[in-house]
Amino acid sequence: MNQVIELLNAHRSIRKFTDRNVEQSTINTLVQAGQSAATSSFIQACTVIQVNDRSKRTSIAEWSGNQSYISDAHTFLVFCADMNRHQISCDMHKADMLSGYTEQFITATVDCALFAQNVAIAAESEGLGIVYIGGLRNKIDLVTETLKLPNLVYPVFGMCIGYPDQDPEVKPRLPLDVILKQDHYDDRDDPSLIAEYDQQVKAYYQNRTGGQKDMSWSEQISGMLQKEARPHMLHFLQSRGFLQK
Amino acid sequence: MNQVIELLNAHRSIRKFTDRNVEQSTINTLVQAGQSAATSSFIQACTVIQVNDRSKRTSIAEWSGNQSYISDAHTFLVFCADMNRHQISCDMHKADMLSGYTEQFITATVDCALFAQNVAIAAESEGLGIVYIGGLRNKIDLVTETLKLPNLVYPVFGMCIGYPDQDPEVKPRLPLDVILKQDHYDDRDDPSLIAEYDQQVKAYYQNRTGGQKDMSWSEQISGMLQKEARPHMLHFLQSRGFLQK
Repeated sequence: MNQVIELLNAHRSIRKFTDRNVEQSTINTLVQAGQSAATSSFIQACTVIQVNDRSKRTSIAEWSGNQSYISDAHTFLVFCADMNRHQISCDMHKADMLSGYTEQFITATVDCALFAQNVAIAAESEGLGIVYIGGLRNKIDLVTETLKLPNLVYPVFGMCIGYPDQDPEVKPRLPLDVILKQDHYDDRDDPSLIAEYDQQVKAYYQNRTGGQKDMSWSEQISGMLQKEARPHMLHFLQSRGFLQK
Repeated sequence: MNQVIELLNAHRSIRKFTDRNVEQSTINTLVQAGQSAATSSFIQACTVIQVNDRSKRTSIAEWSGNQSYISDAHTFLVFCADMNRHQISCDMHKADMLSGYTEQFITATVDCALFAQNVAIAAESEGLGIVYIGGLRNKIDLVTETLKLPNLVYPVFGMCIGYPDQDPEVKPRLPLDVILKQDHYDDRDDPSLIAEYDQQVKAYYQNRTGGQKDMSWSEQISGMLQKEARPHMLHFLQSRGFLQK
Protein backbone atom coordinates (compact mmCIF):
# COMPACT_ATOMS: atom_id res chain seq x y z
CA MET A 1 0.00 0.00 0.00
CA ASN A 2 1.47 3.36 -0.99
CA GLN A 3 1.71 6.43 1.28
CA VAL A 4 -1.21 8.25 -0.33
CA ILE A 5 -3.53 5.31 0.32
CA GLU A 6 -2.16 5.08 3.87
CA LEU A 7 -3.06 8.74 4.32
CA LEU A 8 -6.60 8.16 3.01
CA ASN A 9 -7.10 5.16 5.29
CA ALA A 10 -5.87 7.11 8.33
CA HIS A 11 -8.72 9.63 8.14
CA ARG A 12 -10.71 10.39 11.25
CA SER A 13 -12.61 13.55 12.08
CA ILE A 14 -10.81 16.03 14.34
CA ARG A 15 -12.93 18.12 16.69
CA LYS A 16 -10.23 19.58 18.95
CA PHE A 17 -7.56 21.86 17.58
CA THR A 18 -4.42 23.59 18.88
CA ASP A 19 -3.99 27.38 18.68
CA ARG A 20 -1.39 27.02 15.94
CA ASN A 21 -1.96 29.38 13.04
CA VAL A 22 -2.72 28.19 9.51
CA GLU A 23 -1.22 30.55 6.92
CA GLN A 24 -3.56 32.05 4.34
CA SER A 25 -1.19 30.77 1.64
CA THR A 26 -1.82 27.23 2.94
CA ILE A 27 -5.58 27.73 2.83
CA ASN A 28 -5.27 29.01 -0.74
CA THR A 29 -3.22 25.92 -1.64
CA LEU A 30 -5.89 23.64 -0.16
CA VAL A 31 -8.69 25.39 -2.05
CA GLN A 32 -6.72 25.22 -5.30
CA ALA A 33 -6.23 21.49 -4.72
CA GLY A 34 -10.04 21.36 -4.37
CA GLN A 35 -10.41 23.03 -7.75
CA SER A 36 -8.32 20.27 -9.32
CA ALA A 37 -11.01 17.66 -8.66
CA ALA A 38 -13.11 16.45 -11.56
CA THR A 39 -16.09 18.66 -12.40
CA SER A 40 -19.22 17.57 -14.27
CA SER A 41 -19.16 18.99 -17.84
CA PHE A 42 -16.61 21.55 -16.58
CA ILE A 43 -19.31 23.42 -14.60
CA GLN A 44 -16.98 24.18 -11.65
CA ALA A 45 -19.98 24.65 -9.40
CA CYS A 46 -18.30 24.96 -6.00
CA THR A 47 -17.73 28.24 -4.17
CA VAL A 48 -15.98 28.35 -0.80
CA ILE A 49 -16.77 30.96 1.83
CA GLN A 50 -13.95 31.29 4.38
CA VAL A 51 -15.63 32.53 7.56
CA ASN A 52 -13.25 34.62 9.66
CA ASP A 53 -15.74 36.91 11.40
CA ARG A 54 -16.01 35.76 15.04
CA SER A 55 -19.69 36.53 15.51
CA LYS A 56 -20.64 34.68 12.33
CA ARG A 57 -18.63 31.72 13.53
CA THR A 58 -20.35 31.75 16.92
CA SER A 59 -23.78 31.91 15.30
CA ILE A 60 -23.05 29.06 12.88
CA ALA A 61 -21.63 26.96 15.74
CA GLU A 62 -24.83 27.46 17.71
CA TRP A 63 -27.17 26.82 14.75
CA SER A 64 -25.25 23.64 13.93
CA GLY A 65 -26.19 22.16 17.31
CA ASN A 66 -23.59 23.84 19.55
CA GLN A 67 -20.55 22.44 17.78
CA SER A 68 -17.97 24.63 19.52
CA TYR A 69 -15.11 23.55 17.24
CA ILE A 70 -16.72 25.66 14.50
CA SER A 71 -15.65 28.65 16.60
CA ASP A 72 -12.42 27.11 17.87
CA ALA A 73 -10.82 25.70 14.71
CA HIS A 74 -8.34 28.02 13.05
CA THR A 75 -10.16 27.86 9.72
CA PHE A 76 -13.81 27.35 8.90
CA LEU A 77 -14.89 26.94 5.28
CA VAL A 78 -18.43 26.68 3.90
CA PHE A 79 -18.72 24.77 0.62
CA CYS A 80 -21.54 26.08 -1.55
CA ALA A 81 -23.13 24.52 -4.62
CA ASP A 82 -23.17 27.51 -6.94
CA MET A 83 -25.02 28.09 -10.19
CA ASN A 84 -25.02 31.87 -9.80
CA ARG A 85 -21.88 32.17 -11.89
CA HIS A 86 -23.58 30.15 -14.60
CA GLN A 87 -26.32 32.77 -14.55
CA ILE A 88 -23.56 35.40 -14.92
CA SER A 89 -22.15 33.45 -17.90
CA CYS A 90 -25.57 33.25 -19.52
CA ASP A 91 -26.06 36.99 -18.97
CA MET A 92 -22.66 37.67 -20.61
CA HIS A 93 -23.95 35.92 -23.74
CA LYS A 94 -27.59 37.11 -23.48
CA ALA A 95 -28.68 33.48 -23.15
CA ASP A 96 -31.83 32.34 -21.34
CA MET A 97 -30.72 29.95 -18.63
CA LEU A 98 -32.92 26.94 -17.91
CA SER A 99 -32.54 26.27 -14.20
CA GLY A 100 -34.29 24.41 -11.41
CA TYR A 101 -33.61 20.89 -12.71
CA THR A 102 -32.95 18.11 -10.22
CA GLU A 103 -30.09 17.01 -12.49
CA GLN A 104 -28.40 20.39 -12.01
CA PHE A 105 -28.84 20.09 -8.26
CA ILE A 106 -27.07 16.73 -8.36
CA THR A 107 -24.15 17.87 -10.51
CA ALA A 108 -23.58 21.04 -8.45
CA THR A 109 -23.80 19.12 -5.15
CA VAL A 110 -21.47 16.36 -6.38
CA ASP A 111 -19.02 18.96 -7.73
CA CYS A 112 -18.89 20.49 -4.25
CA ALA A 113 -18.29 17.17 -2.54
CA LEU A 114 -15.46 16.11 -4.88
CA PHE A 115 -13.89 19.54 -4.40
CA ALA A 116 -14.20 19.38 -0.60
CA GLN A 117 -12.75 15.89 -0.40
CA ASN A 118 -9.65 17.11 -2.24
CA VAL A 119 -9.40 19.97 0.29
CA ALA A 120 -9.72 17.43 3.13
CA ILE A 121 -6.97 15.21 1.74
CA ALA A 122 -4.69 18.13 0.96
CA ALA A 123 -5.19 19.38 4.54
CA GLU A 124 -4.43 15.99 6.05
CA SER A 125 -1.34 15.66 3.86
CA GLU A 126 -0.10 18.88 5.51
CA GLY A 127 -0.63 17.47 9.02
CA LEU A 128 -3.88 19.34 9.54
CA GLY A 129 -7.10 17.75 10.81
CA ILE A 130 -10.61 18.34 9.50
CA VAL A 131 -14.24 17.68 10.28
CA TYR A 132 -17.15 18.11 7.90
CA ILE A 133 -20.11 20.08 9.30
CA GLY A 134 -23.46 18.97 7.89
CA GLY A 135 -25.12 20.55 10.94
CA LEU A 136 -25.23 23.95 9.27
CA ARG A 137 -28.18 22.62 7.29
CA ASN A 138 -30.15 22.76 10.60
CA LYS A 139 -30.61 26.47 9.95
CA ILE A 140 -29.77 26.66 6.28
CA ASP A 141 -31.88 29.79 5.84
CA LEU A 142 -29.94 31.72 8.51
CA VAL A 143 -26.57 30.50 7.20
CA THR A 144 -27.58 31.58 3.68
CA GLU A 145 -28.58 35.01 4.94
CA THR A 146 -25.45 35.43 7.08
CA LEU A 147 -23.15 34.56 4.19
CA LYS A 148 -25.23 36.69 1.79
CA LEU A 149 -25.60 33.81 -0.65
CA PRO A 150 -27.54 34.81 -3.77
CA ASN A 151 -30.24 32.79 -5.50
CA LEU A 152 -28.93 29.54 -7.08
CA VAL A 153 -26.31 29.08 -4.34
CA TYR A 154 -26.76 26.84 -1.29
CA PRO A 155 -24.40 25.85 1.52
CA VAL A 156 -23.89 22.07 1.29
CA PHE A 157 -21.66 21.66 4.36
CA GLY A 158 -18.87 23.30 6.29
CA MET A 159 -15.39 22.13 7.20
CA CYS A 160 -13.26 22.95 10.25
CA ILE A 161 -9.51 22.87 9.61
CA GLY A 162 -6.65 23.19 12.09
CA TYR A 163 -3.77 21.40 13.76
CA PRO A 164 -5.13 18.41 15.72
CA ASP A 165 -5.13 18.46 19.50
CA GLN A 166 -6.51 14.92 19.77
CA ASP A 167 -5.71 11.56 18.20
CA PRO A 168 -8.92 9.53 17.93
CA GLU A 169 -8.98 5.98 16.60
CA VAL A 170 -10.02 5.29 13.02
CA LYS A 171 -13.69 4.14 13.05
CA PRO A 172 -14.27 0.66 11.60
CA ARG A 173 -16.18 0.60 8.29
CA LEU A 174 -18.74 -1.88 6.90
CA PRO A 175 -17.27 -5.12 5.47
CA LEU A 176 -16.11 -4.87 1.85
CA ASP A 177 -18.66 -7.52 0.81
CA VAL A 178 -21.50 -5.23 1.85
CA ILE A 179 -20.09 -2.25 -0.06
CA LEU A 180 -18.68 -3.81 -3.25
CA LYS A 181 -20.98 -5.94 -5.42
CA GLN A 182 -20.18 -7.74 -8.70
CA ASP A 183 -22.33 -7.01 -11.78
CA HIS A 184 -25.55 -6.47 -9.87
CA TYR A 185 -26.94 -5.64 -6.47
CA ASP A 186 -27.37 -8.60 -4.14
CA ASP A 187 -28.13 -8.00 -0.46
CA ARG A 188 -28.88 -11.59 0.62
CA ASP A 189 -25.81 -11.76 2.88
CA ASP A 190 -26.05 -8.18 4.12
CA PRO A 191 -28.13 -8.79 7.28
CA SER A 192 -25.65 -11.36 8.64
CA LEU A 193 -22.62 -9.28 7.59
CA ILE A 194 -24.14 -6.19 9.25
CA ALA A 195 -24.82 -8.21 12.42
CA GLU A 196 -21.15 -9.26 12.56
CA TYR A 197 -20.02 -5.70 11.91
CA ASP A 198 -22.32 -4.47 14.68
CA GLN A 199 -20.12 -6.26 17.20
CA GLN A 200 -17.02 -4.47 15.88
CA VAL A 201 -18.72 -1.08 16.20
CA LYS A 202 -19.87 -1.89 19.75
CA ALA A 203 -16.30 -2.75 20.71
CA TYR A 204 -15.04 0.48 19.10
CA TYR A 205 -17.53 2.65 21.04
CA GLN A 206 -16.91 0.82 24.31
CA ASN A 207 -13.19 1.32 23.92
CA ARG A 208 -13.54 4.99 22.93
CA THR A 209 -15.91 5.87 25.75
CA GLY A 210 -14.46 3.65 28.49
CA GLY A 211 -17.57 1.45 28.40
CA GLN A 212 -20.08 4.37 28.47
CA LYS A 213 -21.47 3.94 24.94
CA ASP A 214 -22.89 0.54 24.03
CA MET A 215 -24.31 0.93 20.53
CA SER A 216 -24.10 -1.09 17.34
CA TRP A 217 -24.15 0.38 13.82
CA SER A 218 -27.62 -0.91 12.95
CA GLU A 219 -29.00 0.34 16.27
CA GLN A 220 -27.54 3.78 15.70
CA ILE A 221 -28.90 3.92 12.13
CA SER A 222 -32.35 2.58 13.01
CA GLY A 223 -32.61 5.05 15.89
CA MET A 224 -31.70 7.97 13.66
CA LEU A 225 -34.10 6.98 10.88
CA GLN A 226 -37.15 7.00 13.11
CA LYS A 227 -36.80 10.77 13.30
CA GLU A 228 -37.58 13.39 10.66
CA ALA A 229 -34.53 14.49 8.66
CA ARG A 230 -34.40 18.30 8.36
CA PRO A 231 -37.88 18.48 6.85
CA HIS A 232 -37.39 22.13 5.83
CA MET A 233 -34.81 21.30 3.14
CA LEU A 234 -37.01 20.77 0.08
CA HIS A 235 -39.01 23.94 0.54
CA PHE A 236 -35.88 25.96 1.25
CA LEU A 237 -33.99 24.65 -1.78
CA GLN A 238 -36.96 25.26 -4.06
CA SER A 239 -37.17 28.84 -2.79
CA ARG A 240 -33.51 29.31 -3.84
CA GLY A 241 -33.98 28.04 -7.39
CA PHE A 242 -33.18 24.34 -6.94
CA LEU A 243 -35.19 21.10 -7.28
CA GLN A 244 -38.15 22.78 -8.96
CA LYS A 245 -38.55 20.13 -11.67
CA MET B 1 3.88 21.86 -2.09
CA ASN B 2 3.95 18.25 -0.95
CA GLN B 3 3.64 15.20 -3.20
CA VAL B 4 0.02 14.47 -2.28
CA ILE B 5 -1.05 17.97 -3.30
CA GLU B 6 1.03 17.64 -6.49
CA LEU B 7 -0.88 14.44 -7.23
CA LEU B 8 -4.24 16.17 -6.65
CA ASN B 9 -3.27 19.09 -8.89
CA ALA B 10 -2.15 16.76 -11.68
CA HIS B 11 -5.63 15.28 -12.16
CA ARG B 12 -7.07 15.09 -15.65
CA SER B 13 -9.68 12.68 -16.95
CA ILE B 14 -8.33 9.68 -18.86
CA ARG B 15 -10.50 8.31 -21.68
CA LYS B 16 -8.01 5.98 -23.40
CA PHE B 17 -6.55 3.00 -21.58
CA THR B 18 -3.93 0.32 -22.26
CA ASP B 19 -4.80 -3.40 -22.10
CA ARG B 20 -2.84 -3.80 -18.88
CA ASN B 21 -4.71 -5.75 -16.25
CA VAL B 22 -5.75 -4.25 -12.90
CA GLU B 23 -5.64 -6.91 -10.15
CA GLN B 24 -8.83 -7.48 -8.15
CA SER B 25 -6.76 -6.94 -4.99
CA THR B 26 -5.94 -3.43 -6.26
CA ILE B 27 -9.62 -2.69 -6.94
CA ASN B 28 -10.46 -3.87 -3.43
CA THR B 29 -7.76 -1.58 -2.02
CA LEU B 30 -9.19 1.38 -3.94
CA VAL B 31 -12.73 0.71 -2.71
CA GLN B 32 -11.52 0.34 0.87
CA ALA B 33 -9.76 3.70 0.53
CA GLY B 34 -13.17 5.03 -0.59
CA GLN B 35 -14.74 3.68 2.59
CA SER B 36 -12.23 5.68 4.63
CA ALA B 37 -13.75 8.99 3.52
CA ALA B 38 -15.90 10.91 5.99
CA THR B 39 -19.54 9.80 6.10
CA SER B 40 -22.44 11.90 7.34
CA SER B 41 -23.58 10.67 10.81
CA PHE B 42 -21.79 7.38 10.01
CA ILE B 43 -24.49 6.40 7.46
CA GLN B 44 -21.97 4.83 5.01
CA ALA B 45 -24.44 5.28 2.19
CA CYS B 46 -22.30 4.33 -0.81
CA THR B 47 -22.45 0.97 -2.59
CA VAL B 48 -20.16 0.19 -5.53
CA ILE B 49 -21.19 -2.11 -8.36
CA GLN B 50 -18.19 -3.41 -10.28
CA VAL B 51 -19.48 -4.16 -13.77
CA ASN B 52 -17.52 -6.98 -15.42
CA ASP B 53 -20.21 -8.41 -17.72
CA ARG B 54 -19.34 -7.36 -21.29
CA SER B 55 -22.88 -6.93 -22.52
CA LYS B 56 -23.83 -4.76 -19.54
CA ARG B 57 -20.77 -2.63 -20.20
CA THR B 58 -21.68 -2.23 -23.87
CA SER B 59 -25.23 -1.22 -22.99
CA ILE B 60 -24.16 1.32 -20.39
CA ALA B 61 -21.56 2.76 -22.81
CA GLU B 62 -24.28 3.24 -25.43
CA TRP B 63 -26.83 4.69 -22.99
CA SER B 64 -24.21 7.13 -21.67
CA GLY B 65 -23.93 8.71 -25.12
CA ASN B 66 -21.61 6.21 -26.84
CA GLN B 67 -18.71 6.62 -24.44
CA SER B 68 -16.67 3.66 -25.70
CA TYR B 69 -14.14 3.85 -22.84
CA ILE B 70 -16.86 2.46 -20.56
CA SER B 71 -16.41 -0.78 -22.49
CA ASP B 72 -12.66 -0.43 -23.02
CA ALA B 73 -11.37 0.51 -19.56
CA HIS B 74 -10.18 -2.43 -17.50
CA THR B 75 -12.49 -1.58 -14.62
CA PHE B 76 -15.85 0.11 -14.54
CA LEU B 77 -17.47 0.98 -11.21
CA VAL B 78 -20.93 2.40 -10.57
CA PHE B 79 -21.26 4.42 -7.36
CA CYS B 80 -24.74 4.16 -5.87
CA ALA B 81 -26.34 6.25 -3.13
CA ASP B 82 -27.80 3.51 -0.97
CA MET B 83 -30.36 3.65 1.80
CA ASN B 84 -31.50 0.07 1.32
CA ARG B 85 -29.11 -1.15 3.99
CA HIS B 86 -30.60 1.41 6.35
CA GLN B 87 -33.95 -0.21 5.66
CA ILE B 88 -32.32 -3.57 6.50
CA SER B 89 -31.00 -2.07 9.76
CA CYS B 90 -34.44 -0.73 10.66
CA ASP B 91 -35.97 -4.14 9.89
CA MET B 92 -33.39 -5.80 12.16
CA HIS B 93 -34.66 -3.63 15.03
CA LYS B 94 -38.34 -3.61 13.98
CA ALA B 95 -38.12 0.17 13.57
CA ASP B 96 -40.30 2.20 11.19
CA MET B 97 -37.96 4.02 8.83
CA LEU B 98 -38.88 7.54 7.80
CA SER B 99 -37.55 7.93 4.27
CA GLY B 100 -38.02 10.16 1.24
CA TYR B 101 -36.52 13.32 2.78
CA THR B 102 -34.50 15.66 0.56
CA GLU B 103 -31.97 15.86 3.41
CA GLN B 104 -31.40 12.09 3.16
CA PHE B 105 -30.94 12.39 -0.59
CA ILE B 106 -28.24 15.02 -0.01
CA THR B 107 -26.36 13.06 2.66
CA ALA B 108 -26.41 9.82 0.64
CA THR B 109 -25.33 11.59 -2.56
CA VAL B 110 -22.54 13.50 -0.80
CA ASP B 111 -21.39 10.30 0.95
CA CYS B 112 -21.04 8.69 -2.48
CA ALA B 113 -19.08 11.58 -3.92
CA LEU B 114 -16.61 11.76 -1.01
CA PHE B 115 -16.14 7.99 -1.29
CA ALA B 116 -15.60 8.12 -5.06
CA GLN B 117 -13.10 10.95 -4.84
CA ASN B 118 -11.00 8.86 -2.45
CA VAL B 119 -11.17 5.99 -4.96
CA ALA B 120 -10.08 8.39 -7.73
CA ILE B 121 -7.10 9.67 -5.73
CA ALA B 122 -6.09 6.19 -4.60
CA ALA B 123 -6.22 5.04 -8.25
CA GLU B 124 -4.12 7.96 -9.46
CA SER B 125 -1.61 7.35 -6.67
CA GLU B 126 -1.15 3.84 -8.14
CA GLY B 127 -0.48 5.24 -11.64
CA LEU B 128 -3.98 4.49 -12.87
CA GLY B 129 -6.18 6.99 -14.72
CA ILE B 130 -9.88 7.60 -14.19
CA VAL B 131 -12.87 9.37 -15.67
CA TYR B 132 -16.20 9.98 -13.94
CA ILE B 133 -19.27 9.01 -15.97
CA GLY B 134 -22.30 11.18 -15.25
CA GLY B 135 -23.72 10.12 -18.62
CA LEU B 136 -25.24 6.98 -17.13
CA ARG B 137 -27.96 9.25 -15.74
CA ASN B 138 -29.15 9.62 -19.39
CA LYS B 139 -30.88 6.28 -18.98
CA ILE B 140 -30.92 5.98 -15.22
CA ASP B 141 -33.98 3.69 -15.34
CA LEU B 142 -32.25 1.17 -17.61
CA VAL B 143 -29.01 1.28 -15.60
CA THR B 144 -31.01 0.71 -12.40
CA GLU B 145 -32.79 -2.27 -13.96
CA THR B 146 -29.58 -3.75 -15.42
CA LEU B 147 -27.76 -3.55 -12.08
CA LYS B 148 -30.87 -4.82 -10.23
CA LEU B 149 -30.78 -1.89 -7.82
CA PRO B 150 -33.53 -2.11 -5.19
CA ASN B 151 -35.73 0.72 -3.99
CA LEU B 152 -33.80 3.45 -2.08
CA VAL B 153 -30.67 2.94 -4.21
CA TYR B 154 -29.74 5.10 -7.22
CA PRO B 155 -26.67 5.19 -9.45
CA VAL B 156 -25.05 8.60 -8.98
CA PHE B 157 -22.22 8.18 -11.52
CA GLY B 158 -19.78 5.65 -12.89
CA MET B 159 -15.98 5.63 -13.03
CA CYS B 160 -13.67 4.05 -15.61
CA ILE B 161 -10.30 2.96 -14.21
CA GLY B 162 -7.27 1.65 -16.06
CA TYR B 163 -3.67 2.36 -17.04
CA PRO B 164 -3.57 5.56 -19.14
CA ASP B 165 -2.81 5.38 -22.85
CA GLN B 166 -2.89 9.16 -23.27
CA ASP B 167 -1.40 12.15 -21.46
CA PRO B 168 -3.78 15.11 -21.78
CA GLU B 169 -2.98 18.54 -20.37
CA VAL B 170 -4.44 19.64 -17.05
CA LYS B 171 -7.45 21.91 -17.79
CA PRO B 172 -7.16 25.45 -16.36
CA ARG B 173 -9.59 26.22 -13.53
CA LEU B 174 -11.44 29.44 -12.59
CA PRO B 175 -9.34 32.08 -10.78
CA LEU B 176 -9.09 31.60 -7.01
CA ASP B 177 -10.81 34.97 -6.43
CA VAL B 178 -13.97 33.67 -8.11
CA ILE B 179 -14.00 30.45 -6.05
CA LEU B 180 -12.85 31.59 -2.59
CA LYS B 181 -14.74 34.41 -0.86
CA GLN B 182 -14.09 35.96 2.56
CA ASP B 183 -16.95 36.07 5.13
CA HIS B 184 -19.71 36.55 2.57
CA TYR B 185 -20.57 36.09 -1.07
CA ASP B 186 -19.54 38.94 -3.34
CA ASP B 187 -19.68 38.50 -7.11
CA ARG B 188 -19.01 42.07 -8.20
CA ASP B 189 -15.64 41.20 -9.77
CA ASP B 190 -16.76 37.83 -11.15
CA PRO B 191 -17.84 38.98 -14.65
CA SER B 192 -14.46 40.56 -15.40
CA LEU B 193 -12.53 37.67 -13.82
CA ILE B 194 -14.59 35.18 -15.86
CA ALA B 195 -13.92 37.19 -19.03
CA GLU B 196 -10.15 37.01 -18.38
CA TYR B 197 -10.38 33.30 -17.63
CA ASP B 198 -12.35 32.78 -20.86
CA GLN B 199 -9.21 33.68 -22.82
CA GLN B 200 -7.20 31.04 -20.95
CA VAL B 201 -9.79 28.36 -21.72
CA LYS B 202 -9.88 29.38 -25.40
CA ALA B 203 -6.09 29.01 -25.58
CA TYR B 204 -6.28 25.61 -23.87
CA TYR B 205 -8.89 24.29 -26.35
CA GLN B 206 -7.07 25.71 -29.36
CA ASN B 207 -3.86 24.05 -28.22
CA ARG B 208 -5.57 20.73 -27.46
CA THR B 209 -7.46 20.56 -30.73
CA GLY B 210 -4.87 22.08 -33.05
CA GLY B 211 -7.05 25.17 -33.51
CA GLN B 212 -10.28 23.21 -34.21
CA LYS B 213 -12.14 24.18 -31.01
CA ASP B 214 -12.55 27.89 -30.29
CA MET B 215 -14.72 28.10 -27.17
CA SER B 216 -14.52 30.06 -23.92
CA TRP B 217 -15.76 28.80 -20.56
CA SER B 218 -18.74 31.17 -20.36
CA GLU B 219 -19.73 30.32 -23.95
CA GLN B 220 -19.61 26.59 -23.19
CA ILE B 221 -21.64 27.03 -19.99
CA SER B 222 -24.23 29.36 -21.52
CA GLY B 223 -24.68 27.03 -24.48
CA MET B 224 -25.22 24.04 -22.20
CA LEU B 225 -27.69 25.83 -19.93
CA GLN B 226 -30.06 26.72 -22.75
CA LYS B 227 -30.91 23.03 -22.99
CA GLU B 228 -33.01 20.88 -20.66
CA ALA B 229 -30.95 18.95 -18.11
CA ARG B 230 -32.10 15.30 -17.92
CA PRO B 231 -35.70 16.30 -17.15
CA HIS B 232 -36.61 12.70 -16.18
CA MET B 233 -34.51 12.76 -13.01
CA LEU B 234 -36.99 14.09 -10.44
CA HIS B 235 -39.77 11.71 -11.41
CA PHE B 236 -37.39 8.75 -11.53
CA LEU B 237 -35.83 9.50 -8.13
CA GLN B 238 -39.25 9.96 -6.53
CA SER B 239 -40.32 6.59 -7.93
CA ARG B 240 -37.31 5.00 -6.17
CA GLY B 241 -38.06 6.48 -2.76
CA PHE B 242 -36.04 9.72 -2.90
CA LEU B 243 -36.94 13.44 -2.88
CA GLN B 244 -40.56 12.85 -1.89
CA LYS B 245 -40.63 15.58 0.75
